[in-house]
Amino acid sequence: MERKLIHPKSPEFSRVITGVWRWSALSTDGIEALINTSLEHGITTFDHADIYGNYSCEELFGKAIANRPALRNTIQLVTKCGIKLLSDKRPEHRIKHYDTSKEHIIRSVENSLRNLKTDYLDLLLLHRPDPLMNPAEVAEVFSKLKQSGKVLFFGVSNFTAPQVELLSSYLRDPLVTNQIEISLFYHQLLFDGTVDTLMKHQISPMAWSPLGGGKFFAENEIQKQLETFAQRYACSISQLLLAWLLRHPSGIFPILGTTNPSRLTEGAKALTVQLDKQDWFAMLKLVTGRDVA
Amino acid sequence: MERKLIHPKSPEFSRVITGVWRWSALSTDGIEALINTSLEHGITTFDHADIYGNYSCEELFGKAIANRPALRNTIQLVTKCGIKLLSDKRPEHRIKHYDTSKEHIIRSVENSLRNLKTDYLDLLLLHRPDPLMNPAEVAEVFSKLKQSGKVLFFGVSNFTAPQVELLSSYLRDPLVTNQIEISLFYHQLLFDGTVDTLMKHQISPMAWSPLGGGKFFAENEIQKQLETFAQRYACSISQLLLAWLLRHPSGIFPILGTTNPSRLTEGAKALTVQLDKQDWFAMLKLVTGRDVA
Amino acid sequence: MERKLIHPKSPEFSRVITGVWRWSALSTDGIEALINTSLEHGITTFDHADIYGNYSCEELFGKAIANRPALRNTIQLVTKCGIKLLSDKRPEHRIKHYDTSKEHIIRSVENSLRNLKTDYLDLLLLHRPDPLMNPAEVAEVFSKLKQSGKVLFFGVSNFTAPQVELLSSYLRDPLVTNQIEISLFYHQLLFDGTVDTLMKHQISPMAWSPLGGGKFFAENEIQKQLETFAQRYACSISQLLLAWLLRHPSGIFPILGTTNPSRLTEGAKALTVQLDKQDWFAMLKLVTGRDVA
Repeated sequence: MERKLIHPKSPEFSRVITGVWRWSALSTDGIEALINTSLEHGITTFDHADIYGNYSCEELFGKAIANRPALRNTIQLVTKCGIKLLSDKRPEHRIKHYDTSKEHIIRSVENSLRNLKTDYLDLLLLHRPDPLMNPAEVAEVFSKLKQSGKVLFFGVSNFTAPQVELLSSYLRDPLVTNQIEISLFYHQLLFDGTVDTLMKHQISPMAWSPLGGGKFFAENEIQKQLETFAQRYACSISQLLLAWLLRHPSGIFPILGTTNPSRLTEGAKALTVQLDKQDWFAMLKLVTGRDVA
Repeated sequence: MERKLIHPKSPEFSRVITGVWRWSALSTDGIEALINTSLEHGITTFDHADIYGNYSCEELFGKAIANRPALRNTIQLVTKCGIKLLSDKRPEHRIKHYDTSKEHIIRSVENSLRNLKTDYLDLLLLHRPDPLMNPAEVAEVFSKLKQSGKVLFFGVSNFTAPQVELLSSYLRDPLVTNQIEISLFYHQLLFDGTVDTLMKHQISPMAWSPLGGGKFFAENEIQKQLETFAQRYACSISQLLLAWLLRHPSGIFPILGTTNPSRLTEGAKALTVQLDKQDWFAMLKLVTGRDVA
Repeated sequence: MERKLIHPKSPEFSRVITGVWRWSALSTDGIEALINTSLEHGITTFDHADIYGNYSCEELFGKAIANRPALRNTIQLVTKCGIKLLSDKRPEHRIKHYDTSKEHIIRSVENSLRNLKTDYLDLLLLHRPDPLMNPAEVAEVFSKLKQSGKVLFFGVSNFTAPQVELLSSYLRDPLVTNQIEISLFYHQLLFDGTVDTLMKHQISPMAWSPLGGGKFFAENEIQKQLETFAQRYACSISQLLLAWLLRHPSGIFPILGTTNPSRLTEGAKALTVQLDKQDWFAMLKLVTGRDVA
């Protein structure tokens, strides 16, 4: 597994990342299998959020690694904060909303540290752009969390280009990533300026839903064509879709949200698929229905 | 009434601003009542434009304050230029168009000073983005007006983010505001990068039509829901709508365009309504029809 | 013919440019006539691309000027690279795609130099924004081409504002132009931030399809109205449409893609038409159907 800087000033993350958001339905054995399979294939970065699994996934993960203290320094833990869900766990929430106040960020980080049974997060992301975000307040709390050693690096998720530029302008240290939806089936952020602006700031995106939410499983013409490509590369369609992302010069880090260990194995091996430039454009044409201009 | 910097390098304006654009139908008594009511509640900033009331409002205002010379240094006069209306007062105009030439800006400022019976404007705004604007020429005339003491600060109105960044890049002094339409009912500029870019430049917006042009008077479900919120805060719906704007971290300065003194009183008191974060999102949901993502 | 800096650090180009893209169907005499007519009217800049005429136009042009070595230093040659066409001349292309790799840019420049029978290009443009463009790689190859003297200046074509800002941030020397579609009939890039961002970087656009692809030939109400304007200015409709572009403060350089020498003569003389500001807005209203806001 390639390891790669997500930003010139960031630490290395594994190029493919395991996403934990669907793990709440799994048994402890199931969780351990996903962690072990990840590590076997060099996937050392795990993507969390406070809210995943109705506020439960971090804790399940923390329990699964509790007896393996040597593990902590070989993995990178990413988590997020800023969304407040309607949940039986949070009876004080009357509506789904965002909160990027100093108090909430600090409280959320403390919760995440306790749940993950660790004393630092490698990377903390603001989960959604909050229209009530005060960038000066966020800058202050990020500095404080960094100085205390509780969070090593900071980023955002689902931010537009102007939102990235706004928050960046207030921060002492750079945002190291913007975790956004990118796939062959949802490629618009590659063309509308979002990813261009990240590249200008030397920020690599993390991609959620990198396979397009399973759209390629539909029995249709696109699926048939992808199958033909995949056969030529002696790989699976999911590997082909990941290779399409990995080929992009922004240095995309795909997040695999599967609960099936064999799909992690498959995903990790996508890094060996070297997609030809013409095939990249041919795959794009499959979904746009037209040649480039 | 809170007074507040609209930009770190600007003077203070009153947080709520009285807009003069509908005053041409009023008697002298009516105008004096609006000025006096404003001042009683700490609204010291008055928003004009050369064209308001078919080029008449500045002069009506000037006449109303002519006998009160002590007033001038306790109020802030904002006016605009750059639109040329089809008007019997301007027979040389064959079509509604924009003019941000040096000659027109200077002539318009001289007119405004004469009409307002003052020797300086606190703030001059370009009223609309002019596709024929030459930013170097605007920079030159702004410098000249500042040096002469005729205009203390400069801003724009209805500019997009790239237009703000273009003009800013040519100016010696910062633009201190962009006066744009913002309300609960027209909130898109809070999300499309316009306000994010203002915040990046530490520019606070002024909001025109802050109540959404009276949309809340319609007898519908939204109105009923707003009424429920308002009762909880022991305030009126208009105060609630203003509190929604005042809660935004960009530091919005709402402009009240009413001709009814009691509505100015009501608006000024909106500053005491401290809107809860969850209610801010609940009000947003009222008009979008959905939860945040 | 006015000559004009397209960027403060660029050389001068003629304000009206002859575009070579349709010349492949012409005889040698026809090509020489277009070159001579251009030069007679001071149009010294010629706009090429590797792919024009199915990869043939550069060579046809090169042959036409081969016996006139004194000509080279009095003209400016612009060409482009980055598109790979499906073509019998390029059997290795399986799909229309983009290529802005170091290898392709260098190979394309070498081809252009050979075809145009010259040892330098005045200006090289990337023809389309390539989603697989690596800006660091492009910066490296641009530096190399400049140091070798093979290309004097660099620009882009059909780039969005964020794409211009991305590539610019990697380059040592500024991009001197973005060649984009602009006409009265396709004026949106004047309003959506694209041209504003160019102006912020002091980049003048070149305009392709400056007459709107002949839309004004349609027998309709717009055509009738334009005819009335043209009569008032004692010019043709095409001259009026060019004057509309030349009036814009971004300093647009229109490219004339005609194969009719008399239309080049006509176009060159458009520079003498001084369009009144109100007429500029009246022409805009003809196509938008409404007054400015």
